[in-house]
Amino acid sequence: MNWTKKDLLGITELSKDEITLILDTAESFKDISKREVKKVPTLRGKTVITLFYEPSTRTRVSFEIAAKRLSADTINVSSSTSSYVKGETLKDTAKNLESMQPDVIVIRHNMPGAPHMLSKIVNSSVINAGDGAHEHPTQALLDLFTMREKKGRLDGLKFVIIGDIAHSRVARSNIFALKHFDSEIVCCGPPTMIPPFIEDLGVKVEYDINRAVKNADVIMMLRIQKERGGVSYIPSINEYSTIYGLKQDQVKKAKKDVIIMHPGPMNRGVEITGEVADGPYSVILDQVENGVAVRMAVLFLLTGGEA
Amino acid sequence: MNWTKKDLLGITELSKDEITLILDTAESFKDISKREVKKVPTLRGKTVITLFYEPSTRTRVSFEIAAKRLSADTINVSSSTSSYVKGETLKDTAKNLESMQPDVIVIRHNMPGAPHMLSKIVNSSVINAGDGAHEHPTQALLDLFTMREKKGRLDGLKFVIIGDIAHSRVARSNIFALKHFDSEIVCCGPPTMIPPFIEDLGVKVEYDINRAVKNADVIMMLRIQKERGGVSYIPSINEYSTIYGLKQDQVKKAKKDVIIMHPGPMNRGVEITGEVADGPYSVILDQVENGVAVRMAVLFLLTGGEA
Amino acid sequence: MNWTKKDLLGITELSKDEITLILDTAESFKDISKREVKKVPTLRGKTVITLFYEPSTRTRVSFEIAAKRLSADTINVSSSTSSYVKGETLKDTAKNLESMQPDVIVIRHNMPGAPHMLSKIVNSSVINAGDGAHEHPTQALLDLFTMREKKGRLDGLKFVIIGDIAHSRVARSNIFALKHFDSEIVCCGPPTMIPPFIEDLGVKVEYDINRAVKNADVIMMLRIQKERGGVSYIPSINEYSTIYGLKQDQVKKAKKDVIIMHPGPMNRGVEITGEVADGPYSVILDQVENGVAVRMAVLFLLTGGEA
Repeated sequence: MNWTKKDLLGITELSKDEITLILDTAESFKDISKREVKKVPTLRGKTVITLFYEPSTRTRVSFEIAAKRLSADTINVSSSTSSYVKGETLKDTAKNLESMQPDVIVIRHNMPGAPHMLSKIVNSSVINAGDGAHEHPTQALLDLFTMREKKGRLDGLKFVIIGDIAHSRVARSNIFALKHFDSEIVCCGPPTMIPPFIEDLGVKVEYDINRAVKNADVIMMLRIQKERGGVSYIPSINEYSTIYGLKQDQVKKAKKDVIIMHPGPMNRGVEITGEVADGPYSVILDQVENGVAVRMAVLFLLTGGEA
Repeated sequence: MNWTKKDLLGITELSKDEITLILDTAESFKDISKREVKKVPTLRGKTVITLFYEPSTRTRVSFEIAAKRLSADTINVSSSTSSYVKGETLKDTAKNLESMQPDVIVIRHNMPGAPHMLSKIVNSSVINAGDGAHEHPTQALLDLFTMREKKGRLDGLKFVIIGDIAHSRVARSNIFALKHFDSEIVCCGPPTMIPPFIEDLGVKVEYDINRAVKNADVIMMLRIQKERGGVSYIPSINEYSTIYGLKQDQVKKAKKDVIIMHPGPMNRGVEITGEVADGPYSVILDQVENGVAVRMAVLFLLTGGEA
Repeated sequence: MNWTKKDLLGITELSKDEITLILDTAESFKDISKREVKKVPTLRGKTVITLFYEPSTRTRVSFEIAAKRLSADTINVSSSTSSYVKGETLKDTAKNLESMQPDVIVIRHNMPGAPHMLSKIVNSSVINAGDGAHEHPTQALLDLFTMREKKGRLDGLKFVIIGDIAHSRVARSNIFALKHFDSEIVCCGPPTMIPPFIEDLGVKVEYDINRAVKNADVIMMLRIQKERGGVSYIPSINEYSTIYGLKQDQVKKAKKDVIIMHPGPMNRGVEITGEVADGPYSVILDQVENGVAVRMAVLFLLTGGEA
């Protein structure tokens, strides 16, 4: 199949075939970052703007490296260092950037839906690099890529997400993505962090971490999002850590070949112990590595590349 | 004719022929940003440093994109994110940067004359990207480019600038540029925002916006420069907006093919209504687009390119 | 000889041959920055990340220009504009960046030893761009390059360092480097700024600046490091300037062909008068120029280039 969408706004908009296309394309790009010369001329003469209204280096660096390894020109705009975005509507900022003919605008914004609004305004391709607690599609795609790489498949798995499901764009995007596959999805966390009616999405809810992880193929820990007020939903960090932090005890209850994931940055000793994070089941750094390949694939497909 | 100047410091230094040369050169560059491959090797191996002592993304991004589409290497230095420029004289900063052999230094500074001082110190070409309330030559050049493109000429036009003329580098640079052509220039704004003796420059002053815009070919709205204390010159934003904000009523009084300009970022609802800004006469986004072409032309000519 | 080390962490780790190899390699790169096309394809497809936990533009720009002139891709990460480095251990930040397969990480950190820790964690090459008051090896290398260039040799010189020896990574790295050569090293400054037992390193201590500079071949002034509390070691800036600031009087006491050095940024009128800084013996800007060449050499050697 060929890619036909202008933008990558969220996982909800993607068909199973589109997800698979991105993952397959990413596979062919992963090798580039391991070569002596980590660069191909594919996007030469394309302009990629990263427009970040929330502080982030991890995701910005990943996109920037992905774009540069494809030979695109990259321009960073961040609200913290810029007056551009202050006192100007997002619409005007978007139209202005658009006028300079970028091929792709990668946007992170604290407001859910900001990338969707942007996509209607501009002809450039828009990539959602995280919009509030809504979606973070490239994160879910790199997670799926990593699961498929490690497990060989995305069907028939028991997938457990632990943490603040209610306020996590990573959880949302992953759930939407995994729903395309024939896997079991279990959400686990304190009741204040589990959104009501989430079972309607076809996922199971489990408040006891030890029951949740039992026979899990994949355990994905979420970050306590202090900057989104996550702390107000739990009595204390210590209590959260004791009850919902992932430790060796829980890992032992999972399948023998379980993989442990985390979108980063980690709060070591809070949602995950250092022992587990650095242990043999952790694929956390694989996620980061695969992020570059997945973002190369997305940039490639959105700018008209054929897989 | 050939370009002979080392720097672009202000419109006052340019002859009519030099202005025309830049506009003609920009025309040939405009097409590049519309291609599939938006890049030519013209400035390969040249180093362009943007040195911004005032926050700005719009202008910085425009220069950065212009430089990259010409294949130059770009380095961003901004006073907000850097200690470089703190506690060091501008002269020392300049000499230091110079020692790293950049071909062009693009400087924005809150002090009028800073680029001129820089130009005497360094052998690199210097481009003034805005110095206090003094000059902003590439803005005026992109404005002229846009007028010429839309009107087919720069002579025989009625050109109206509305707003804080006294504290606007955009107004100054535009007036200096348009004086080379046989057009009528009308400045309009509250008396506190009209500099004394401005008529000596050969422009007309009109305090009534409705009379000012009558039969105008070009209306250029200025931004209320809150950061330069513009607000202290008017009783209130509301009153300013009521009396001097551009609305459909005024547009109707202008010529039928009037064009509406604004250097951005706009304060919608203050100096211009959204209806006018987004209306059929607005060429505000054309200005932004042409900014890249004009800056490519300036970078090209300053680094020895022949038109 | 060939370069065999993965990292450049400090001068203490380098043999005399390795220092000489870097200087010789830098010589061949110096010419590139003077060409019309200041770029060679040597590091095409390599990724260089600058990771700066302390504000700095001078050093960051120098590394960025060096990398770009070798055609490497550069990514800037600074703690001031980024959330990446906040709330995440240096180890996790390092492992994450490593996962994106950079070839070189250039790190500046306020904690002595941070680059050494990083080097053990990552497979990428690590360059210490200044770690607290510990080392700043590329600064010492560019200083040696400049001395060798101006004096034709590094042996048989009288080398005087004046200022806050105790808290200066520049002084430390230079002393370690010069110890490989048969030169006299004199440290001069107020007793509070001279580390105890420094004579054990084989350097002389002189508290009187006029005696220190007598017959000097090289005078290196250090910056009063206000940000490291340097001011608390002296009664007042004025007194320091009077007693230890370099003025024409002192320059006259040195050899007739003395060279005056300063790592920048200068506090004019404090540790050095403008007259001396801009005078005929000053090689301060040569140091900056040579910094690009030396950093090109280091990037080249660390990424496997053969001299």
